[in-house]
Amino acid sequence: MARAQASVRVLGVDPGLTRCGVGVVDVAADRSATLVHVGVVRSDPELPIERRLTLIAAGLRAVIAEHRPHVVAVERVFAQQNRGTVMGTAQASGIALLLAGESGLAAATHTPSEVKAAITGYGNADKRQVQAMVARILRLDDLPKPADAADALALALCHAWRSGGPAVAAPGSAGKGALTPAQRAWAEAERASRR
Amino acid sequence: MARAQASVRVLGVDPGLTRCGVGVVDVAADRSATLVHVGVVRSDPELPIERRLTLIAAGLRAVIAEHRPHVVAVERVFAQQNRGTVMGTAQASGIALLLAGESGLAAATHTPSEVKAAITGYGNADKRQVQAMVARILRLDDLPKPADAADALALALCHAWRSGGPAVAAPGSAGKGALTPAQRAWAEAERASRR
Repeated sequence: MARAQASVRVLGVDPGLTRCGVGVVDVAADRSATLVHVGVVRSDPELPIERRLTLIAAGLRAVIAEHRPHVVAVERVFAQQNRGTVMGTAQASGIALLLAGESGLAAATHTPSEVKAAITGYGNADKRQVQAMVARILRLDDLPKPADAADALALALCHAWRSGGPAVAAPGSAGKGALTPAQRAWAEAERASRR
Repeated sequence: MARAQASVRVLGVDPGLTRCGVGVVDVAADRSATLVHVGVVRSDPELPIERRLTLIAAGLRAVIAEHRPHVVAVERVFAQQNRGTVMGTAQASGIALLLAGESGLAAATHTPSEVKAAITGYGNADKRQVQAMVARILRLDDLPKPADAADALALALCHAWRSGGPAVAAPGSAGKGALTPAQRAWAEAERASRR
């Protein structure tokens, strides 16, 4: 897919062993965003852990190779979260960060509430609100599904906006978090669009 | 290093980001064990996480390439363990399991108390007791150091013994956990040697 020159391409990863959400977006200097890719990398829970992680890594590598993101944003995993699967989630997040490092890409982690706040303006937004806002931002006709895929897109958008968009790809321009007048106008329009 | 035909070579990994212990042992059918390699893969805590994981992966890959283990045993990480570093530990364990999978090796995880019980006969043994027993089993003049390296050796020994030694490398022989008369004699001698 064609890529505007002054945009940053972000791969968002919602880590998981059974379903690992992946979403790639291009975010322009004016903070507008375009969907590049969305999907889910899966591994069968019946397989041994080393095979599952190998499948997750292969799926993520394929997305990186095909879409060549500038940066990888991964959801930050906390020990407190739903006990049963948290270690597998942490392992999958480690794989995503490793592949970023091995591809020479920068990586960042964001907490679920940072993502919700960036996308909906509200850190306690529910999954449905995040999905609806992601669909609106990316001008999608339907909600991105499954939820893991929507979360991955939300992460990618969150990262681009929090880090000042294309400044990530072009260090020395606007700078981290500093909004240009156009970005500020867009942020206000965005806020207004949230009812 | 020469390798006896009927032995299994196990790489034990005590996962960590700052220090990741690695130990390789050959364990024979009579459960006697020989040290092949012991060391620690390190990464600077000042580096971004994606660089740290890349360094850990490179170090583990080098050990696998040089010593060609049959199987990789990794300490099982629990969410409850020391909160601050547990996510990094889980990520490092995911990297070790991934590299096993990508090298076509089997992998297994063992809990710290399984390891302590296998090595010292006592699931609540302290680190010093485990180190001393590892040194005795491997006929080392000094305690293996740092503790992460000793833990990695203990893991490797634990795995070989729990899975019936060379049965792992040669399916169809003695079978999982079934002790031959010689192994049983050795196990008794081992037990006697623990005072």
